[in-house]
Amino acid sequence: MASTTNHTPPLLDLTIDNITENVVRINSQSMNARLNYLMERLVTHVHDFARETRLSTHEWMATIEFLTKTGQMCTDVRQEFILLSDILGLSMLVDSIDHPKPPNCTEGSVLGPFHTGDAPHLPIGSSMSTDAAGEPMLALCTVSDSSGRPISGVKVDIWETDSSGHYDVQYATRESPSERCVMTSDVDGGFWFKAIKPVSYPIPDDGPVGKLLQLLNRHCWRPSHMHFMFEKQGLDPLITTLFIRGDKYETSDVVFGVKSSLIIDLGKVDEETATKYGVPVGALLLRHKFVLASTEETEKLRDKNAMEAMERLGLKTKLIDHLPVPDLD
Amino acid sequence: MASTTNHTPPLLDLTIDNITENVVRINSQSMNARLNYLMERLVTHVHDFARETRLSTHEWMATIEFLTKTGQMCTDVRQEFILLSDILGLSMLVDSIDHPKPPNCTEGSVLGPFHTGDAPHLPIGSSMSTDAAGEPMLALCTVSDSSGRPISGVKVDIWETDSSGHYDVQYATRESPSERCVMTSDVDGGFWFKAIKPVSYPIPDDGPVGKLLQLLNRHCWRPSHMHFMFEKQGLDPLITTLFIRGDKYETSDVVFGVKSSLIIDLGKVDEETATKYGVPVGALLLRHKFVLASTEETEKLRDKNAMEAMERLGLKTKLIDHLPVPDLD
Repeated sequence: MASTTNHTPPLLDLTIDNITENVVRINSQSMNARLNYLMERLVTHVHDFARETRLSTHEWMATIEFLTKTGQMCTDVRQEFILLSDILGLSMLVDSIDHPKPPNCTEGSVLGPFHTGDAPHLPIGSSMSTDAAGEPMLALCTVSDSSGRPISGVKVDIWETDSSGHYDVQYATRESPSERCVMTSDVDGGFWFKAIKPVSYPIPDDGPVGKLLQLLNRHCWRPSHMHFMFEKQGLDPLITTLFIRGDKYETSDVVFGVKSSLIIDLGKVDEETATKYGVPVGALLLRHKFVLASTEETEKLRDKNAMEAMERLGLKTKLIDHLPVPDLD
Repeated sequence: MASTTNHTPPLLDLTIDNITENVVRINSQSMNARLNYLMERLVTHVHDFARETRLSTHEWMATIEFLTKTGQMCTDVRQEFILLSDILGLSMLVDSIDHPKPPNCTEGSVLGPFHTGDAPHLPIGSSMSTDAAGEPMLALCTVSDSSGRPISGVKVDIWETDSSGHYDVQYATRESPSERCVMTSDVDGGFWFKAIKPVSYPIPDDGPVGKLLQLLNRHCWRPSHMHFMFEKQGLDPLITTLFIRGDKYETSDVVFGVKSSLIIDLGKVDEETATKYGVPVGALLLRHKFVLASTEETEKLRDKNAMEAMERLGLKTKLIDHLPVPDLD
């Protein structure tokens, strides 16, 4: 723990009007320019929020209690803070900023709080659902780069709810993962699997975030969808979601995740496909071509967007590790 | 759970540039104008923070993990979120906004995370400390209103650390409260008690907030002090702290709580006082006159400050229950 340096102003008799500059200064002693910048913006916004609302002690305490309960609701398989970030639109915003997509690439969507690290690695063609009550669906997918070249060896995480709209982790009795798997794309960039038709579902509303939605007179539903996450060295990780067209909540997703390009139509399995993949004729069919950007393409676009945005905001910054910090030179 | 109303925009294809207005709109459906205003300011600041920093997914996840750990560190006797608010200067700022003091009234300071609801109610003249290793200190105090009239029947909460710089709640073995009490001012507005000389101490640094301070190259010390909280119907509650002059951390309090008017000199008990209060001659003596504002005085000042501040910020607001909301008329 370092002692205060000579750069620290004497902190005494701080007022509504001068407290921010003093708190910012004392939080700028790290050697990490990015951390200093994040803290400066954080303190400024938090203080401005209090000043612009004349935040009361009572409201402050209610916020402290809300955040405490939100943290205490979190477990290995429940992430209430991600849920909070989701319903405030922050998750979508951060994904848009950090993973801009070059033209033709598949757009991103929210990770959500239900991804887990323990999904089984299944061979292509496996069934990822054990829910007999679900409507069977065959999924035939490919992964390519922005020039249309197939990419093999991509790790694909896939997860959805069961037919009642619950993820496996929402069951207290969960012993092993279900309705989730990891696959690897084949030499043609293909991967296919058997699953069930996604259903719309309410996000968990028994915690602080659910209570907040109620207070705000908002519904807590997500339109029917399936999650995908793609990772391979040299590719920008893609976290996305496919939405089934026509869902009642298509334009009011509680976590703001829907993009037109991610809404798909389900088809029906014809005789040839049925024979080839061993599923009944007439079963639901999801076909999708995912197009991934390379790390280089994304970084280039991200840097360009960042510098333009900083300029529009009138902030003089430079990029270190592709992230802006004040340019003091 | 109400369904979405006609006022809700279709939420689709949200971008970095239009997501904020959409999230604000969907969060403005409550009948509570104040809640809508708080949400509008919150969403705007959170999104602006992400845009101005080009917050990365990695940084977002680190923040989620930080907040989760902060919540999980909280117990009945430990409040890590208050500590976080304290070290960001938010606690001091909110107190300054919500409890402005008319001239001559005692200034406020941070509540801190160590106030408890279980302090014993002790008769005037009691000893609130059982720590034989502490330097004995006699405290002779009075409470009056802003015109100097003594106020009887004020509930006074008093708490300090033991001589090692720890509050009772920091001991896992705590069975009952110590170094804390509640007293009631007598007919002359007086209250007196035996305690020990406050010592400087580090705030708990074994949690996420302590780690953040280390990252920021900040020390985690508070100058020696004693906490007081005053409550009585008709009075604005006063949460304050007396600091012992000359402490090494006087101008670098980690939670920004020090005000010149709250720094006091300790005296020595003379023969007459020793006889009167039953303490040794030469013991340390804390004398202080606390001056409390009435609810009415504070509300008037708070309203005036709020309207002036909103005007300076260029925000057209009106006050409901003494708190600003947008004035849409």
